[in-house]
Amino acid sequence: MTTFAALYVPAPLRAAVSDDAWLAAMLEAERAVATVTGAEISDDVFRPELYDIAALSEEGRADTNPVVPLARALRERAANAHAPATSQDILDTAAMLVARNARTLILAELDGAAGACAELAEAHRSTVMAGRTLLQQAQPITFGATAAGWLVGLVRARRRLADTILPAQLGGPVGTLDPELGERLAAELGMDAKATPWHANRAPMAGLGYALDAVGAACAKIGLDVVLLAQNEIGELSEREGGGSSSMPHKRNPAAAVLARACARLVYANASVLTAGEHELQRAAGTWQAEWPALSAALAFAGGAAAAARRSLEGLQVHADRMAANAAELDGDIGAADALVERALAYYRAQA
Amino acid sequence: MTTFAALYVPAPLRAAVSDDAWLAAMLEAERAVATVTGAEISDDVFRPELYDIAALSEEGRADTNPVVPLARALRERAANAHAPATSQDILDTAAMLVARNARTLILAELDGAAGACAELAEAHRSTVMAGRTLLQQAQPITFGATAAGWLVGLVRARRRLADTILPAQLGGPVGTLDPELGERLAAELGMDAKATPWHANRAPMAGLGYALDAVGAACAKIGLDVVLLAQNEIGELSEREGGGSSSMPHKRNPAAAVLARACARLVYANASVLTAGEHELQRAAGTWQAEWPALSAALAFAGGAAAAARRSLEGLQVHADRMAANAAELDGDIGAADALVERALAYYRAQA
Amino acid sequence: MTTFAALYVPAPLRAAVSDDAWLAAMLEAERAVATVTGAEISDDVFRPELYDIAALSEEGRADTNPVVPLARALRERAANAHAPATSQDILDTAAMLVARNARTLILAELDGAAGACAELAEAHRSTVMAGRTLLQQAQPITFGATAAGWLVGLVRARRRLADTILPAQLGGPVGTLDPELGERLAAELGMDAKATPWHANRAPMAGLGYALDAVGAACAKIGLDVVLLAQNEIGELSEREGGGSSSMPHKRNPAAAVLARACARLVYANASVLTAGEHELQRAAGTWQAEWPALSAALAFAGGAAAAARRSLEGLQVHADRMAANAAELDGDIGAADALVERALAYYRAQA
Amino acid sequence: MTTFAALYVPAPLRAAVSDDAWLAAMLEAERAVATVTGAEISDDVFRPELYDIAALSEEGRADTNPVVPLARALRERAANAHAPATSQDILDTAAMLVARNARTLILAELDGAAGACAELAEAHRSTVMAGRTLLQQAQPITFGATAAGWLVGLVRARRRLADTILPAQLGGPVGTLDPELGERLAAELGMDAKATPWHANRAPMAGLGYALDAVGAACAKIGLDVVLLAQNEIGELSEREGGGSSSMPHKRNPAAAVLARACARLVYANASVLTAGEHELQRAAGTWQAEWPALSAALAFAGGAAAAARRSLEGLQVHADRMAANAAELDGDIGAADALVERALAYYRAQA
Repeated sequence: MTTFAALYVPAPLRAAVSDDAWLAAMLEAERAVATVTGAEISDDVFRPELYDIAALSEEGRADTNPVVPLARALRERAANAHAPATSQDILDTAAMLVARNARTLILAELDGAAGACAELAEAHRSTVMAGRTLLQQAQPITFGATAAGWLVGLVRARRRLADTILPAQLGGPVGTLDPELGERLAAELGMDAKATPWHANRAPMAGLGYALDAVGAACAKIGLDVVLLAQNEIGELSEREGGGSSSMPHKRNPAAAVLARACARLVYANASVLTAGEHELQRAAGTWQAEWPALSAALAFAGGAAAAARRSLEGLQVHADRMAANAAELDGDIGAADALVERALAYYRAQA
Repeated sequence: MTTFAALYVPAPLRAAVSDDAWLAAMLEAERAVATVTGAEISDDVFRPELYDIAALSEEGRADTNPVVPLARALRERAANAHAPATSQDILDTAAMLVARNARTLILAELDGAAGACAELAEAHRSTVMAGRTLLQQAQPITFGATAAGWLVGLVRARRRLADTILPAQLGGPVGTLDPELGERLAAELGMDAKATPWHANRAPMAGLGYALDAVGAACAKIGLDVVLLAQNEIGELSEREGGGSSSMPHKRNPAAAVLARACARLVYANASVLTAGEHELQRAAGTWQAEWPALSAALAFAGGAAAAARRSLEGLQVHADRMAANAAELDGDIGAADALVERALAYYRAQA
Repeated sequence: MTTFAALYVPAPLRAAVSDDAWLAAMLEAERAVATVTGAEISDDVFRPELYDIAALSEEGRADTNPVVPLARALRERAANAHAPATSQDILDTAAMLVARNARTLILAELDGAAGACAELAEAHRSTVMAGRTLLQQAQPITFGATAAGWLVGLVRARRRLADTILPAQLGGPVGTLDPELGERLAAELGMDAKATPWHANRAPMAGLGYALDAVGAACAKIGLDVVLLAQNEIGELSEREGGGSSSMPHKRNPAAAVLARACARLVYANASVLTAGEHELQRAAGTWQAEWPALSAALAFAGGAAAAARRSLEGLQVHADRMAANAAELDGDIGAADALVERALAYYRAQA
Repeated sequence: MTTFAALYVPAPLRAAVSDDAWLAAMLEAERAVATVTGAEISDDVFRPELYDIAALSEEGRADTNPVVPLARALRERAANAHAPATSQDILDTAAMLVARNARTLILAELDGAAGACAELAEAHRSTVMAGRTLLQQAQPITFGATAAGWLVGLVRARRRLADTILPAQLGGPVGTLDPELGERLAAELGMDAKATPWHANRAPMAGLGYALDAVGAACAKIGLDVVLLAQNEIGELSEREGGGSSSMPHKRNPAAAVLARACARLVYANASVLTAGEHELQRAAGTWQAEWPALSAALAFAGGAAAAARRSLEGLQVHADRMAANAAELDGDIGAADALVERALAYYRAQA
């Protein structure tokens, strides 16, 4: 789905945002539309293997989206298919179905990362290290408190993503279908419903963009701190399986931390397509059609960031001796570092 | 505060994000720190007129922020001032105080806009117009339903902004002060408290950025639709006080709608500084110091967008005859347009 | 390479930024390194079919890039392969090779678009239409002058992209290889050379991002104007093959113009990864690793924008009668509209 | 002009982008229009002290820009003023005049930074330090080569900015004035001329945005490296006047480097308003009106970044002993580090 995809994104998540997944989601939306409108169409009609998403994409160029040819193909098999939906109903619902499936995978990676983080916070309550501001040594802190800070970030981002409304859409060409129909579609698909169509009010898409940004930021914060604390001269952290270099095999790079940062940058860029930009009147002429690749990429890289942060945390080696040595001449005490750990763990446990 | 500020931003909001407002907020934060730590310092010490924010900004260049020289100046008057805060405690708390004051003004503009929108939706339940997708005529809709869509966007953005957590901060140099101290500071200032310091976990700042983006988007959506429907050949809307042109005095421009769009672009750009980017270890070396101008600008332009949308809506002239004429040859009926108006008004009233 | 890729991007360009293309480029870079260092390795070693880019991407996760495992695999076949390059030399050179191939395709689409635009400008020198500012009628202009404006934008963007320096890279692990070696590599590959390595001075990558942005903007400007002039009530332009709607088969959408705008948004987002952000010391820990998917996407969508603008222009139907009718009551004359056409055509011809 | 302006931006540059500077530039453009059209208006009419830019901004709200009321005020003094210009002619020309003046100041800061950088490169040709990739020690390099890399970045950005076309504009309401008039205006003002108007082809504005981005990136790269090399455990660089902390007076922060990074972030955000986004037909309804504050801010912060990089470099203390100690156990030699210094200095001198 993207250059060197396996470098960044776990295989299940790549599948979850693939064109096959989009096709399945569009057909699931079409099937559910048939169900809630009582169209009595065999489920067989909606089997993905009957359709070729690459060909539909190519053919859809003349229509600005792949649902117009898909609807034509469906109607060849069942004349009453698709109605009264418009292509945006199917694509918006499918986008949210894709997001729902991808979200499950992202949340699992975040949970893994948070679990590893909680263990680190617990285990290192008494591991003193230098606190650093503007990258200068400032006062002592504990590594437990540092990990607790990461944990709070992860749990907060997880909550934001889990709480994001992922609504179905069934408003018809200009959004004036009976809104109860949209509610029935949402119920049929186990999705959220909006009181009114969101064809040109893209708050749900923006909300998803914000949440993915937040996931990226929480993971990149960990990646950044690990990279900094893994510098040779600091030497307080390393990744167990840190990778080498093609020309310097002795090197131990904090590879997962680096990739968490890379993924986050790609999340921010793609999410910006979802969060800024207005949609004209009852359906946008360009802003809408830009969403699909951006959504797939934002989901994929958010999961990639979470998976990388998790790998980094699960394999993190904490060099307490170096921490102690680096902090040896710092004045001050660790203050309420332990209380921060307590609070972070309580926040984490309340979430789980 | 910005080029041609009065063109974009209402005067009270310009004041609310001015350097004077920031100075007052920093001093209020310092005063509250003194109170909760029992420092027993006269309120006189915290009077803004004693300090010169331009000079503090200049002097602060050597320290990356204006609080270091401010704290020095405070200590000359009261030796126990500022402790145990760090400059970030004061600036983060001040930023949220500035945001709180600006938010009140932005919400008022949004309320005005929503009120005008609700009236339009109510009054034009039966005003048929063409629904347009990809800017092509599609099916009939009502102007009431169009305004209802705008209303839902405004109310949703309003709620997001109103619900944004604006926390105080008192964690000391590396965030390890007793967190109960931070809670006392928040209580003293009537602000939200976070369970743990957010020195380098910028979720509150990002959340504010998201909310301001959402305000910008809701207002720009209105601006965009008004601009489109005000085109001469469409002629369905006009602004009562629409401005002219230096070379074409006969023109009637939808000036407020245009400015709503311009402001939104400036919101997106400035909010991006708040929403993406990681902060190193216990305090960032650059990412943090970029927040203050971006926050002021994002607040100001969000309020500018809301005020412009409000002006546009309050002075909106609806040309029902042109709407009818343009939609005359469209097939189809307006469907559940009225139900959409009902639902939008119910959502609006539940909010108010 | 991206969701619904065929909707946006012509097939040859999809191939040019595919993982296979990247693999071929990396191997071409490795081959050229062997040549300029006199390593005497059979060309057979560098045949792409010997390597599995998906597996290399997966394996490269531990190293933050796919070249580390690729170099291992090469050395199994030829012990002196890869030296003295570092993985960044290979990837940076490969990125620029991919960009060079993709650029050829993008330029061809731009040339097609410019050709169509020049014909329109020439043919419609005398076709009077309303000039519109802030989307309000202002003074008469000609459609020839409008098309001339698009043409200038296309030619300028084309020139910027064609002039972009696409350098090879061969600096070794920390950029201290003899710079003459880098020059020899560039010569071997027919590429530009930089006087010094650009491992952490990303001006070439940023320059490419700027140029792709400029291509997107020039094409989106055309898309925007076409969409506006194709509105039913204006009716001055239409696309010959303009697509329908799944629920409204009678509609004629300016589909290509819409897709040009969608592609441009995706260019801006992806190019932003290339243009902003600093690289640490001698090689970045995250900012570099984010470039590859962003570069592929920016190239692909820039080409998609150009191809869409070209399709729109090549099939553009100009309704001179509607233009005349819409402009009928405008005061003023067309001024130097013809001189603008002359100048634009001269600029275009000088370029060709 | 922005929150804590003196913290970021040198005083002359603040003045150069102030509302007073914009007013003076608009009047200079109006004066020049009068001259080239032979309007015979006394220069006295164009004295800035006669006009109140704050009031014009406020009044201009109804017209989306301050030139409409300014033109009215001018005509009260000289009935033939302003014609045949449109407000966009004046504002676009004024924007480029403001940019030209600000550019002179930015270039001076870049020259200062480059000079300091060249001295460092020259002085430290033999100062061995560790080269670091992914923030891990890799192979030896010299500090001279590191500074040479910064120098190349500065010189390249300087050249890009210096080469940016800053054109005048005089096309009238819809851009159809005789283009020779625009050329005469450009000549009168000593500015560049475009062959055709750029009212809605914003390549000049985008080009300026790219150049300011490049300045920000070159300075932020230096800031980032200085911050990293100034970490206590690395200790290879420090700023002579590095600032303290409000709570930790013993700290030595690399304050200028930090501010260079902060300024660059603000450049990127503001420049994005200039580089992405299309302008409708003959004048944009929102995208244009967003440019002025973004341009001022991008210029100011680019200059701020350059000034901060210069301060950091001019006061940079190089701790060769720490460099040697940190690199002591690294294998390899410094390779062609000296050749890199030579080439960078040659590139710099060719520029000067």
